[in-house]
Amino acid sequence: MNKVRIAIIGATGYTSLEAIRWLLRHPHAEITYLASRKMEQPISDLFPELLGRLNLPIEPFDPQAVKARADVALLCLPHVAAMDHAPALLDAGLRVIDLSADYRLKDAALYEHWYKHKHVDAANLAHAVYGLPEFFRSEIKSAKLVSNPGCYPTAAILGIAPLVKAGLVEPADIIVNAASGISGAGRTPSQQHHFPERNESFEPYGIGSHRHAPEIQQTLSGLRGREVQLLFVPHLIPMDRGILETIYLKPVAGATLADARAAFAQAYGNEPFVRIRETNLPSTKYVANSNFLDLAVREYNGRFVVMTALDNMVKGASGQAIQNMNIMFGLPETSGLV
Amino acid sequence: MNKVRIAIIGATGYTSLEAIRWLLRHPHAEITYLASRKMEQPISDLFPELLGRLNLPIEPFDPQAVKARADVALLCLPHVAAMDHAPALLDAGLRVIDLSADYRLKDAALYEHWYKHKHVDAANLAHAVYGLPEFFRSEIKSAKLVSNPGCYPTAAILGIAPLVKAGLVEPADIIVNAASGISGAGRTPSQQHHFPERNESFEPYGIGSHRHAPEIQQTLSGLRGREVQLLFVPHLIPMDRGILETIYLKPVAGATLADARAAFAQAYGNEPFVRIRETNLPSTKYVANSNFLDLAVREYNGRFVVMTALDNMVKGASGQAIQNMNIMFGLPETSGLV
Amino acid sequence: MNKVRIAIIGATGYTSLEAIRWLLRHPHAEITYLASRKMEQPISDLFPELLGRLNLPIEPFDPQAVKARADVALLCLPHVAAMDHAPALLDAGLRVIDLSADYRLKDAALYEHWYKHKHVDAANLAHAVYGLPEFFRSEIKSAKLVSNPGCYPTAAILGIAPLVKAGLVEPADIIVNAASGISGAGRTPSQQHHFPERNESFEPYGIGSHRHAPEIQQTLSGLRGREVQLLFVPHLIPMDRGILETIYLKPVAGATLADARAAFAQAYGNEPFVRIRETNLPSTKYVANSNFLDLAVREYNGRFVVMTALDNMVKGASGQAIQNMNIMFGLPETSGLV
Amino acid sequence: MNKVRIAIIGATGYTSLEAIRWLLRHPHAEITYLASRKMEQPISDLFPELLGRLNLPIEPFDPQAVKARADVALLCLPHVAAMDHAPALLDAGLRVIDLSADYRLKDAALYEHWYKHKHVDAANLAHAVYGLPEFFRSEIKSAKLVSNPGCYPTAAILGIAPLVKAGLVEPADIIVNAASGISGAGRTPSQQHHFPERNESFEPYGIGSHRHAPEIQQTLSGLRGREVQLLFVPHLIPMDRGILETIYLKPVAGATLADARAAFAQAYGNEPFVRIRETNLPSTKYVANSNFLDLAVREYNGRFVVMTALDNMVKGASGQAIQNMNIMFGLPETSGLV
Repeated sequence: MNKVRIAIIGATGYTSLEAIRWLLRHPHAEITYLASRKMEQPISDLFPELLGRLNLPIEPFDPQAVKARADVALLCLPHVAAMDHAPALLDAGLRVIDLSADYRLKDAALYEHWYKHKHVDAANLAHAVYGLPEFFRSEIKSAKLVSNPGCYPTAAILGIAPLVKAGLVEPADIIVNAASGISGAGRTPSQQHHFPERNESFEPYGIGSHRHAPEIQQTLSGLRGREVQLLFVPHLIPMDRGILETIYLKPVAGATLADARAAFAQAYGNEPFVRIRETNLPSTKYVANSNFLDLAVREYNGRFVVMTALDNMVKGASGQAIQNMNIMFGLPETSGLV
Repeated sequence: MNKVRIAIIGATGYTSLEAIRWLLRHPHAEITYLASRKMEQPISDLFPELLGRLNLPIEPFDPQAVKARADVALLCLPHVAAMDHAPALLDAGLRVIDLSADYRLKDAALYEHWYKHKHVDAANLAHAVYGLPEFFRSEIKSAKLVSNPGCYPTAAILGIAPLVKAGLVEPADIIVNAASGISGAGRTPSQQHHFPERNESFEPYGIGSHRHAPEIQQTLSGLRGREVQLLFVPHLIPMDRGILETIYLKPVAGATLADARAAFAQAYGNEPFVRIRETNLPSTKYVANSNFLDLAVREYNGRFVVMTALDNMVKGASGQAIQNMNIMFGLPETSGLV
Repeated sequence: MNKVRIAIIGATGYTSLEAIRWLLRHPHAEITYLASRKMEQPISDLFPELLGRLNLPIEPFDPQAVKARADVALLCLPHVAAMDHAPALLDAGLRVIDLSADYRLKDAALYEHWYKHKHVDAANLAHAVYGLPEFFRSEIKSAKLVSNPGCYPTAAILGIAPLVKAGLVEPADIIVNAASGISGAGRTPSQQHHFPERNESFEPYGIGSHRHAPEIQQTLSGLRGREVQLLFVPHLIPMDRGILETIYLKPVAGATLADARAAFAQAYGNEPFVRIRETNLPSTKYVANSNFLDLAVREYNGRFVVMTALDNMVKGASGQAIQNMNIMFGLPETSGLV
Repeated sequence: MNKVRIAIIGATGYTSLEAIRWLLRHPHAEITYLASRKMEQPISDLFPELLGRLNLPIEPFDPQAVKARADVALLCLPHVAAMDHAPALLDAGLRVIDLSADYRLKDAALYEHWYKHKHVDAANLAHAVYGLPEFFRSEIKSAKLVSNPGCYPTAAILGIAPLVKAGLVEPADIIVNAASGISGAGRTPSQQHHFPERNESFEPYGIGSHRHAPEIQQTLSGLRGREVQLLFVPHLIPMDRGILETIYLKPVAGATLADARAAFAQAYGNEPFVRIRETNLPSTKYVANSNFLDLAVREYNGRFVVMTALDNMVKGASGQAIQNMNIMFGLPETSGLV
């Protein structure tokens, strides 16, 4: 079997590093192109952990050169930059997996409201597939452009969708209390994420203004067929990687915990990367450096409490991108991800 | 002014160490007695940070000796042990501040349900005063026995009570999502709190079974005059000290964010240790090693979101005990706590 | 190619968990037996991260049963326990890789001095091979019993041996200042490694009494052919995994930094898991979750300063054990370790 | 007693914040002026932990206004900026404590070599007193300008000076292996100190190029009366605050551990902020948030090993500055520092 050849566009950020780490042990894929505007030098100068592991240079972005050497491009770029690069790659005939937010919100006006920037690629937005395999596997298979979900949305949607789809919970009374390690904030230094500010600190942020809220709402509404509304409150945890979401849902009359468990079992019984926990609760520790999402559901004082955990860099970003790539190219879905 | 003389009973745990740290700089108080069954040796052998700062030995518990040398006893004992020691001290004429849970739940049956142990001191339970100065200052002033609140309850009650008292929120639809640093789990080692298990880990625990839930409910119900119900879900943060609670409340019809702000301003306008944040959100970092509780309130998709932060060892334990002591002995309330 | 079948004896500690994690992605090996006295239940009850990844039960230790199902046994036991289990496995015809200290010190009297316990398996001690591939690869290939090196010794020996062998440094004036993450202390909880004691704490320990000092000295003396002496001072770092050693050596007259670099290049030029850093210094971060040892050498005020970093759970324990297994069974040395 | 009035020049960095925290509880001092070029707003907007604790605005630097309202200025500025501000303050008649490096190296040429910047205030450099109370208390008392020592140098000099002064160790064979928490790097964000880069990372830096090496050497040489030489290798610890130095010294012929202990006892027997540990070793945890330096000495394979620990923000910076201020103004030396 020929290996799938992968170009990473925007090679200098954390999602790129994480994709590289996993792809280096992928039996059926290989990295053939690293692109960035920032520098032309070995990637191991930038990421010292890659010394002796990947000897590719960082090259300028050239869609034709990418096409000549790769089958698929992972866009590890910030939003706005992603939609500046995707059209040329798609036009050149490459398949594209975009890890930014640029193709997640199907409504360009909604995108412009939340991201404060004009959407410049409506054409490709129209056919982009939301890359959440548990719900959109068949569309991903044939997609030209996959929009890889956000880290918080992956944990929220997987925790809520089976209940909403089964009509077991009130769709307008959902609270998502989320917490994330700091790698989720990216590689660019800032006062807020300077080590002595962040260490030994736990705090909420972005209440009512976090861009992942509309992404969660859009996807859940789509899966339900009618509008879903929620409160999404994220927090920062003083650690590297991991998201844990504690989700409070109101059962509809008659819905029981057994119903909720059955809905999850049905949705995820055959999923390779979703684990339902019975005897203990999810923890970021149990999913760190893995592509698993762990999930548990409990009932408490008239609410369902669903807890989900994932590694924001893996199932929340680059691991899910590789899972999508495996699906797109007909590889075993867990290839390179165990 | 004569200094208030303090005995610490149960000197070998974290709440004792924290009380000592603060009392060493208290201008109007001095530690005169340290009691524990565990050892008779200098306290600095046990807590190396106290070397050269406090040269008292750890002595056996002897109520008459305590009475001869102290005005007030801080019980830094585990629950059950506390109610074994309190009666003799009270009988000897000492005033007592209990940092355990033994006198927090006014209903002995409720205590027995949650703590799985018979309550053996109903007599003193009857007159114990709940030591939350912001709501019970006048009772604390003359109390013989003050029951110091739990760490989570302090953060929850201060965040909810003004809204419940003012009738601004639905009293049966309150969700408290709480998170705590690990010092709150005490000084006894365990698998769960072994460093490599806990570090880089964030997880929920004790859903529906945490003993602080009935304490919060009892106090809020008392302040409201009718029953209050809530969901309380705690989480562990990989850091030393700090609690942050994110509280979701449903406004009653017509209640506005301005009403909520006014209720907090009225409740805490003159409080020395409650700070209301307008321009940023609470963080455990801002209250670490201080006796402050920080609070902010926001409105989001039809809910009030109240966030409170405190240091679980200070306002959540030993600092609040000293605040209570200051009140009981007529000292300036902030003495030794700035 | 048939897969190498592996039994893990002593399955409930951290070195076992780490071995399992790596072996699950090893293309030419499979775990077939998990033994422990402690419990008979699925391993994923003990290590929740293994849920859905390894469904073997934990079984009692039965050498014949092990032999029937495995080719090699990894002993992940504490010292003393290891030499209680190894003979029966060797007698049954299995090859054994011992991760404890029981077969590291070739002189049983020295073992007894440092480990305060009689050595009960002198017969196997005599032929045990020290499992440091960079220096003993050919002996490992045919060994029945491999004694896997300690975590600190791996980092120290790899940093010093090429210089000592080449006669470039004074063999009696070597200082090893070492620091380790806390997973190196094992899985058993203790006051010392209770999260709130260890977090935000950096401290030395075991000066002159750490058992890894004689192991380092014995191996370096053996490689040199004459005695080598050193100071070894370990410290605890408040993090999970990683060892960094800063080694101060005195060049003999005429020895230059270029000589030192040449000695390292010659020793490690073809080594798959030793990386020599030119443009930056080693960091525990760059080797975390990998089997690499990173090394740099500098000259400063008349000393060579050698810095080495590795992940104490991987190259310092279970990764190196797998590297040894690969060598023993003729597999590519990097199999399962990229 | 009138309170000493203090101006903080350069109010927006960590040393300023730390000075403010301690001064707020100083019984004989008060902050009257906060200066910075950066902003004119309440200090609590910048440092949210100060909300409700200090209501001074941040003002422009105006030496005459400072003089009108303060007795002493703490310069919490970066180097170079400090010597731009000190002369005007001294000319106006204020006493000055400079926390930067600008007046530490007595030889302006040495300063220029290490700090790559011309020294522009030779006049005041000539009379600046090195603010290490344990060795220069009497000069500090009457100093106009005190140069507060660096954090690493404080821990190194206090650990070495008594041995060098007593002639107990070889003055050219001293190795200082140092490690520091990240607050020592200051408040300006950088890639290197971005949380996800620094967390779970331990690494050496600045070998042979750290500016604290000449400061240590100069002071020790001065105390000895002849040249002292050393290797100084710093490391970064993933935690907020704390320095631990492990110092390797070679005893001169005949010098014993008892001699070393006696030298330390004589030097520090009456010192309020130096603690000598017998029964356990220093740890950053035991000195965190205190002005203590902890010290222990051991003998091992022909070397003295001295370990020192301090809080880099307190005894290593702002606490020591306040100790110096107490000395300069005739206050009890421990005022505000317990």
